[in-house]
Amino acid sequence: MVSSLRSLDENLISHIPPFRKLERSDIREILDATTPKRFSAGQAIFEEDEPAERFYLLLDGHVRVVRTTAAGDQVIARHIVSGELMGIASAIGRTTYPASAVAIDDCLVLSWPTSLWATFVEKYDGFASETYKTVGKRLSEANNHILELATQQVEQRVARALLRLALQSSRNTDEGMEIDFPLTRQNISEMTGTTLYTVSRLLSAWEKKGIVTSGRKKVVVTHLGKLKSLADVDPTYEG
Amino acid sequence: MVSSLRSLDENLISHIPPFRKLERSDIREILDATTPKRFSAGQAIFEEDEPAERFYLLLDGHVRVVRTTAAGDQVIARHIVSGELMGIASAIGRTTYPASAVAIDDCLVLSWPTSLWATFVEKYDGFASETYKTVGKRLSEANNHILELATQQVEQRVARALLRLALQSSRNTDEGMEIDFPLTRQNISEMTGTTLYTVSRLLSAWEKKGIVTSGRKKVVVTHLGKLKSLADVDPTYEG
Repeated sequence: MVSSLRSLDENLISHIPPFRKLERSDIREILDATTPKRFSAGQAIFEEDEPAERFYLLLDGHVRVVRTTAAGDQVIARHIVSGELMGIASAIGRTTYPASAVAIDDCLVLSWPTSLWATFVEKYDGFASETYKTVGKRLSEANNHILELATQQVEQRVARALLRLALQSSRNTDEGMEIDFPLTRQNISEMTGTTLYTVSRLLSAWEKKGIVTSGRKKVVVTHLGKLKSLADVDPTYEG
Repeated sequence: MVSSLRSLDENLISHIPPFRKLERSDIREILDATTPKRFSAGQAIFEEDEPAERFYLLLDGHVRVVRTTAAGDQVIARHIVSGELMGIASAIGRTTYPASAVAIDDCLVLSWPTSLWATFVEKYDGFASETYKTVGKRLSEANNHILELATQQVEQRVARALLRLALQSSRNTDEGMEIDFPLTRQNISEMTGTTLYTVSRLLSAWEKKGIVTSGRKKVVVTHLGKLKSLADVDPTYEG
């Protein structure tokens, strides 16, 4: 964690792919142009459909990317973990944010005015190509999500959503792989296009079989192999 | 249409966004580097997971972008209409095609070796930014598709899929807006994650209400306003 927002060290971002190829002096320049900010759990970092005035880098914490339908239903499009860019509307030719970003826990965020985007792309070697890889990865994930929603049964979809989180964002505890941010049953239903009732029914059944345990905002995968089998993925699947 | 594949005229591509800002000499250079090819209905232009050796521009015809699940289910990710790039794995940091592209009707396609991608991005003004807009548009579409699959009832999803096709790729006939490529009930089920039975049931019901008519590979929207209302979109919605 960062002790002072005033003295951002180059090491904070020098390992992150879009900045990895840069000289220390470039990184210094980038850090000097940023406005670091903390957000607490539940706060919106930016909102769907608002003008994309800044782009962001999540330095610490977890962020939920949320879209809301005209009817008011929420869908969680993806989770952002530390080291990822977000709100990069310019990379996809948009001038507004396509979704809202909400802090799940305490977050530390760097951001730059969108007017600097073209400068970053032109001036900083590797920034553009890494960014487009990020966009490509999100497009692939979105297409996988479509495939799952269109062809899989509810049980398989929920299993796969939990499996992906366990592999991407968990810590090992005595109980098993604990997803390392607050996650409610409502959140799981918003990730999988499922009712809260179905999520509760599945988690209870899986708990009896020793596959997961769950609390109010906590999910622990206690048997990864069985969860993979419910998700109908290869035992070697890594997310 | 093109009378001879040997003498590609600059006008063929000079109006297409990624090439719109270019000088005639640049366009000549680009055309001289291409291998034009015809595909007939049902032929694969490229296949999911194969090395992305070339990238493509659809000059004439319609293409279905298809993914197949491990269980063998097919999902139609999107349709490509003339003037669109496809197989642009490099733009999303991939080395294999994320999906297969299948000709729906007779197609005329230009293609270039993927090794030229970096040259195009560097050398041709506006090519990169237009391409990334395309990727961004596809990401937005994919995210909308997720929202629909996760929150909408089957009737609304099927209505919205037909509505989108009618607005994007149809011709006006005496009957109404005829989707201008062969479209079966099976295709509609693969676009919407619905069973063939449900699609048939819905189309029959809508036919009785005067909203669509359909034949074996043909769908005509006969009452756009009612279809918009089934799709639960604003009357001014344009796709």
